Amino acid sequence: MLKVPVSTPGGRYDIAIGPGLLDALDDTLGRLDPTSVAIVSDPTVAALYGERVAAAARRVAQTQSFVLPAGEHDKSLAMASRIVDHLVEMAADRRTVLVALGGGVIGDIAGFAAAVYMRGIRVVQVPTTLLSQVDSSVGGKTGVNHPQGKNLIGAFHQPAAVVADTSTLRSLPSRELAAGIAEILKHGLIADAPYFDATAAALPQLLARDDAALGRAIARSCEIKAGVVGRDERESGERALLNFGHTFGHAIEALTGFGTWLHGEAVGCGMCLASDLSRRVGLLGQADCERIASVIASAGLPTRIGGLSADAAVRTMRGDKKAEAGSIRFILLDRLGHAVQRPVPDAQLTETLAAGGYG
Amino acid sequence: MLKVPVSTPGGRYDIAIGPGLLDALDDTLGRLDPTSVAIVSDPTVAALYGERVAAAARRVAQTQSFVLPAGEHDKSLAMASRIVDHLVEMAADRRTVLVALGGGVIGDIAGFAAAVYMRGIRVVQVPTTLLSQVDSSVGGKTGVNHPQGKNLIGAFHQPAAVVADTSTLRSLPSRELAAGIAEILKHGLIADAPYFDATAAALPQLLARDDAALGRAIARSCEIKAGVVGRDERESGERALLNFGHTFGHAIEALTGFGTWLHGEAVGCGMCLASDLSRRVGLLGQADCERIASVIASAGLPTRIGGLSADAAVRTMRGDKKAEAGSIRFILLDRLGHAVQRPVPDAQLTETLAAGGYG
Repeated sequence: MLKVPVSTPGGRYDIAIGPGLLDALDDTLGRLDPTSVAIVSDPTVAALYGERVAAAARRVAQTQSFVLPAGEHDKSLAMASRIVDHLVEMAADRRTVLVALGGGVIGDIAGFAAAVYMRGIRVVQVPTTLLSQVDSSVGGKTGVNHPQGKNLIGAFHQPAAVVADTSTLRSLPSRELAAGIAEILKHGLIADAPYFDATAAALPQLLARDDAALGRAIARSCEIKAGVVGRDERESGERALLNFGHTFGHAIEALTGFGTWLHGEAVGCGMCLASDLSRRVGLLGQADCERIASVIASAGLPTRIGGLSADAAVRTMRGDKKAEAGSIRFILLDRLGHAVQRPVPDAQLTETLAAGGYG
Repeated sequence: MLKVPVSTPGGRYDIAIGPGLLDALDDTLGRLDPTSVAIVSDPTVAALYGERVAAAARRVAQTQSFVLPAGEHDKSLAMASRIVDHLVEMAADRRTVLVALGGGVIGDIAGFAAAVYMRGIRVVQVPTTLLSQVDSSVGGKTGVNHPQGKNLIGAFHQPAAVVADTSTLRSLPSRELAAGIAEILKHGLIADAPYFDATAAALPQLLARDDAALGRAIARSCEIKAGVVGRDERESGERALLNFGHTFGHAIEALTGFGTWLHGEAVGCGMCLASDLSRRVGLLGQADCERIASVIASAGLPTRIGGLSADAAVRTMRGDKKAEAGSIRFILLDRLGHAVQRPVPDAQLTETLAAGGYG
């Protein structure tokens, strides 16, 4: 088992990574000494792992399980409200621990419900997708979507612990595996060029779900993200660099309808666009730009998504919550392994969108 | 103008107290340099003060005003969600400042909306009731009610500033004035016996809405509360003492239907019950107990509320969010000016409820 410690002003916790950890969840829960445990998951994950996790939790405290529908379109305030209703029904108190068992959507909704129930109860994130293991369960961002934008409603609420069982990735659809690799590649691109190279070289093992390769990548990605979040919990500066590929990616998700493309797929394509934009403003060389697109393609991710309107994309990006008073701040690369934040002239943005197939 | 500084791990801000401050709100807002201002109030307050506050805000930034219904029964997640919808419509960004103009209900809902919009934007609390000036606008507690309990959904979100204009208290109904005095008396009872005596002596001036007397009381109450909150933002220890009278009070509100009795009225009666309970467990003398009830009555507050079921009250208190696994922690007085937290035997609790007129 690998362990990554995370320290933020909002709390300290460990990320445990390894095969078979679901069955040892009572170790983690026992240390938290809860009055009761509430497990939240979705139908797919509940059918695969719900009983094993509930059995481990029951060894520690009275346990209730709730199954919610969980597509990105279900990540709503209404759904978070249903979790709160369940917590009220089970008479959850301030020492109840909520276990978020599932992918990023479950982690975000359940994390938000934990953040606001009684003004905050503890949550243990048990991510079962590669994306949530390397990204969304680390850092304390929780939230739900508003019809007008993703994660417009949310809270910073650090988990009490994160348990990433790599065995759960064996049941993950291939598209979701690739979507997780997108974030792993992102961590290398913004902060650690040798890690990007190592990930590129290890793609065959990662795609074959090799436990050791996955564990190493998850641990290094969590270290990078935890480092950034520890230095900048509230996203006033450095944390924004984690959004590399995300401004374009969010627009893709919004314009195609949330759920058409997976978040990681949209980010994969968004990183190609952001690399192209980095090149056009003179920060990144042509060869690096092409190499990035080639590695992203080798991971099974889209590098172009056609049929989108450039005007609509710009409008959506201006409304993104990272924008201030209508100007768009982009995260760009000035070399492999190093990201910077820059305002971008409209002309280059237009060129990048045109080159990326936007109409 | 009086100024009380507040320092908590979640932020530092000032409470400004004095007559006529509404018209100087541009000073406070100007220092925050917002991209835009959203004013949230209720119909009564908007009619009285909305235009003056909007005029001050417009001198600083583009301003939008939203008027919500605002009784305790409107303090719902749905209402907070409407504020978020308004913020989305006006394209509020992370540097927008929300102004909560009104009593505790508006402060709580708008504060919660500010806490969760884009994971937190700044809120300036402009309380217009005595209760909210001395209590609910200080300390960063925000929240909405769940059908099963008050403030079950919420967040800790410190305001960027608090501006308490004592002139607004001239338009306050007498019952609401008395309800505010309940919390002022509470601050003396739990932390400062001479302040309790001074408040008792100043009741005629306070009830006549004398600006100087009100200003002094608001400032001292805010100091006491700010001191407690500064030492214990998350209510792990000392902050719980501020709940003196509140465990009984919340049960009164729940059993009579939220809105029948004002929060401060329920707390006034709750403090009589908590004093009686303090006496029955041997902490407080008979004379002090009677004096407390007499001062509370002189403030125009109820000391008994008849027709309630003792069993239902106990059930409700066991479900209170300060309870853990069904046991009730009470805040009691061991002398005037000093509170302690104690579990209480069922027998004494039953006696207090019976003596208080519960059936």
